[in-house]
Amino acid sequence: MSIEKSSLQAARSAYQPKLPKALQGPVKASEGAPTQSVGNQSEINGLFPNTYGMPMVEFVPASTENVVDFNIGVILSGGQAPGGHNVISGLFDGLKAINPGGKLYGFLMGPGGLVDHKYIELTSSIIDEYRNTGGFDIIGSGRTKLEETDQFESGIKILRELGIKALVIIGGDDSNTNACVLAEYYAAKNYGVQVIGCPKTIDGDLKNEQIETSFGFDTATKTYAELIGNIERDCNSARKYWQFSKRMGRSASHVARECALLTQPVVCLISEEVEASGQSLDQVVSYIADIVAKRAAAGKNFGTVLIPEGIIEFIPSIKRLIAELNDVLATEEAKTVAREDQIEYVKAHLSAENLAQFNSLPIDVACQLALDRDPHGNVQVSLIETEKLLSRMVAAKLAEWKKDGRYTGKFAAQHHFFGYEGRCATPSNFDADYCYSLGYNATKLIAAGKTGYMSIIKNTTAPANEWIAGGVPITMMMNLEKRSGKMKPVIRKALVETDGKPFKFFAANREKWAVEDCYVYPGPIQYWGPSEVCDLPTRTLQLEQSK
Amino acid sequence: MSIEKSSLQAARSAYQPKLPKALQGPVKASEGAPTQSVGNQSEINGLFPNTYGMPMVEFVPASTENVVDFNIGVILSGGQAPGGHNVISGLFDGLKAINPGGKLYGFLMGPGGLVDHKYIELTSSIIDEYRNTGGFDIIGSGRTKLEETDQFESGIKILRELGIKALVIIGGDDSNTNACVLAEYYAAKNYGVQVIGCPKTIDGDLKNEQIETSFGFDTATKTYAELIGNIERDCNSARKYWQFSKRMGRSASHVARECALLTQPVVCLISEEVEASGQSLDQVVSYIADIVAKRAAAGKNFGTVLIPEGIIEFIPSIKRLIAELNDVLATEEAKTVAREDQIEYVKAHLSAENLAQFNSLPIDVACQLALDRDPHGNVQVSLIETEKLLSRMVAAKLAEWKKDGRYTGKFAAQHHFFGYEGRCATPSNFDADYCYSLGYNATKLIAAGKTGYMSIIKNTTAPANEWIAGGVPITMMMNLEKRSGKMKPVIRKALVETDGKPFKFFAANREKWAVEDCYVYPGPIQYWGPSEVCDLPTRTLQLEQSK
Repeated sequence: MSIEKSSLQAARSAYQPKLPKALQGPVKASEGAPTQSVGNQSEINGLFPNTYGMPMVEFVPASTENVVDFNIGVILSGGQAPGGHNVISGLFDGLKAINPGGKLYGFLMGPGGLVDHKYIELTSSIIDEYRNTGGFDIIGSGRTKLEETDQFESGIKILRELGIKALVIIGGDDSNTNACVLAEYYAAKNYGVQVIGCPKTIDGDLKNEQIETSFGFDTATKTYAELIGNIERDCNSARKYWQFSKRMGRSASHVARECALLTQPVVCLISEEVEASGQSLDQVVSYIADIVAKRAAAGKNFGTVLIPEGIIEFIPSIKRLIAELNDVLATEEAKTVAREDQIEYVKAHLSAENLAQFNSLPIDVACQLALDRDPHGNVQVSLIETEKLLSRMVAAKLAEWKKDGRYTGKFAAQHHFFGYEGRCATPSNFDADYCYSLGYNATKLIAAGKTGYMSIIKNTTAPANEWIAGGVPITMMMNLEKRSGKMKPVIRKALVETDGKPFKFFAANREKWAVEDCYVYPGPIQYWGPSEVCDLPTRTLQLEQSK
Repeated sequence: MSIEKSSLQAARSAYQPKLPKALQGPVKASEGAPTQSVGNQSEINGLFPNTYGMPMVEFVPASTENVVDFNIGVILSGGQAPGGHNVISGLFDGLKAINPGGKLYGFLMGPGGLVDHKYIELTSSIIDEYRNTGGFDIIGSGRTKLEETDQFESGIKILRELGIKALVIIGGDDSNTNACVLAEYYAAKNYGVQVIGCPKTIDGDLKNEQIETSFGFDTATKTYAELIGNIERDCNSARKYWQFSKRMGRSASHVARECALLTQPVVCLISEEVEASGQSLDQVVSYIADIVAKRAAAGKNFGTVLIPEGIIEFIPSIKRLIAELNDVLATEEAKTVAREDQIEYVKAHLSAENLAQFNSLPIDVACQLALDRDPHGNVQVSLIETEKLLSRMVAAKLAEWKKDGRYTGKFAAQHHFFGYEGRCATPSNFDADYCYSLGYNATKLIAAGKTGYMSIIKNTTAPANEWIAGGVPITMMMNLEKRSGKMKPVIRKALVETDGKPFKFFAANREKWAVEDCYVYPGPIQYWGPSEVCDLPTRTLQLEQSK
């Protein structure tokens, strides 16, 4: 197995990721008091009798460490995030340090590989091809959900066959919830297989008191910020366009906010704030149009607007329209309508209120809503070009204001969506070190006999040497939430807190950023330059951990 | 004047760009034989009696150099390209080396600044803020064309008032053509002001025997290649999407081809080849669909497709449709049609042949064609989402083939457009050095009394120390071409040569790239790492200059 490498890949493969001091030699586990879940304690306890209430774990240096004989299995679950390969190389090196004869198996294309018994042994020659690289291509990823007893039972067969003592699941909140369900099941059955999770997602929404940041968020936001900075500079040079850009990040606005902190755009919407203040689509549009008008009055017919992917779900009138569209488009009759007649069909079937909203939308966005459906016949919310929707509606608003003399500028917009560009970027030094440490640390949790834990690394704004390594019981982060009509135990998702330090810093500065030109141009991620260029964690982390 | 800087900007500002050995001390001009234009010699000679037939110039080290007392004016013309600020800082340092008391004036927002007498003096404190940065924001850029005697006469007033001996115009082929027209006019009038051009454009189409590459092409293509590489890695990890991405680059396919050489995608279209082989839209679609089907047969329902921006202009049936749409939409009647009725209006007015083509297009592309018009009522070709057009038509073709049993895969596509992301990126070491050298060298052309020349740097695949600095008479690159119905003297635009080494390398490898997975992931531009990561010129240059 050999990959044709770019010069950066070749040079970067020699990078030795940093480990916390505690993980550099033999360790012992220092355990805290029993833990409680963040909500619904008695229900979560009832659902996870074997993995509830376990203590927090921190690893501290020890004089010796026993050699334990075990093999490990690893799964990449869900969307790609930079650093996944380093979690796996950390696992590999950590395993070899404890048990030189131990084997690491990778299940292919996500959790489905466990169920279907598709795997490879990850040898040192494979691992060495993937050190410090982006992507999940070493074993592929997938979105099969591990939820059913049949899956667990199928899994245990191959785990036993391969002599796997512990399974490491690298994933987001849902995947880690499922990791815990699996840990509980194997513990209840006394199958002797541990399950450990690792916190992955570029969206940044898997974080809490225990998890400072999910891996990949650093690299992805820095990659997007590079592009936003370039576009800001273009905007500031040509002085004639409004640049609307949407960013991946699911419901939460962590990605947009981190990018805003790095690049200081003219406008950045935060979905959580839009929802908290109950803004209508018209109010959001007016907010942007107002800034456009203010800048126009100062002779500046240009600017940049950052839009979080999730905003559409936070605006009630659009939410209602989408819900009705899903109903209208899901019927058997609707499926027989020819493509070119579909818009008329939709218009004929919408309620008056939603029809008015539909008709107010720009034609191409209306086309997307009426035509682009997922295999279940639902509108694909993630495909809606919110950046165009908003800019077109801002243009319409400004045209109204022009009639009143309230606005006299020119408004021309360009549109961008940044998502896939960042998910497989070459990990930053931070993510390379953080992920390697997460993986290495996971082997310590395994050696300590833990299950139902997530590997965690804390104190991440300090140099890597001072990072704190340990584990958190996954149940500790759970509460009950409604999913598909049923209450289910899930890891509580982190939305942007409008009373948190990062948001407050943003909110305190955005009026200045809106009117003056305060752009910052972060440039591309650097691996070999001065430390202040190469090694800084996210602004979010810096602000959160500032005194 | 102070800009809030990212840590990369701050660190990067200390970089001292490299100069060719010949420019590191006093120089003298070594002149070649008289030159001829590339075409229409007698007509070009007749139009440029004072600037035609001048010799090529090369600068060689000399023992001393006279101090000449002069000021310089500089203009940024047209679209942004990384390195413009370094041309200006090279000009500044070059000027100060010859004439420490000399002043550099920047005309604001493009050639219009000269005509309207809008300018600033570029002092060392301003220059120092912009060294090694992307963007054209130091003085802004614009697209006013310098073509009229009135403009030239207005210009000479301010040039004289400021004691400017020479004007440096940084621009693409059209801007340099106009620089030459201005040089000729001032020479004919004996106004005593020289005009020097600098070859700028990310599109890569300003190149010929004398100009090895236009500046910005290196950085822009490396920035796009970073993103394409990231998307390829994502594609290869998720193994479920076809990623269609379009790249900026005007008519020529240099940008797409360079990106293909750097990233080895599954498919890359080259407009010049499509035209040369007279392919119809259906043939282009079939070419892609055929590769999709081949990969599907091997279980690979994923891949990447690179599309040059200009391809739409090279497909005859689309060209005809656009031409008729422009006529249909330009009438007074069309302007009164309500937005929601516009598509029906268009359909009612197209000829049968073009209507069939229009109806065959995906609905959102049809919307764009019918609705998005420039201020003259024309279809905005650059806004047509060719990446969607092609992927939708590929999907339709595959659906047909599925009925015949010729294809049995799944086809899901994602779409990207990379353009504005690359125009203002922080210049690569190559562009930082090349641009600084172009600017520094321009001051030598000025000191040597040259006008109607473009600043050139050759031997660019060698280390900067060995680069060759000199000048080429702009008339040498000209021929007559039809513009808006009239024959005009213009610099011949370089299209991709299908018999050139870079294309041949691409063509020799693409079948392998299509079927096997040969992706290369270039990663972000590096400034401080190993030389083979930080200092390589484009693959195009490397192949062109290979023995």
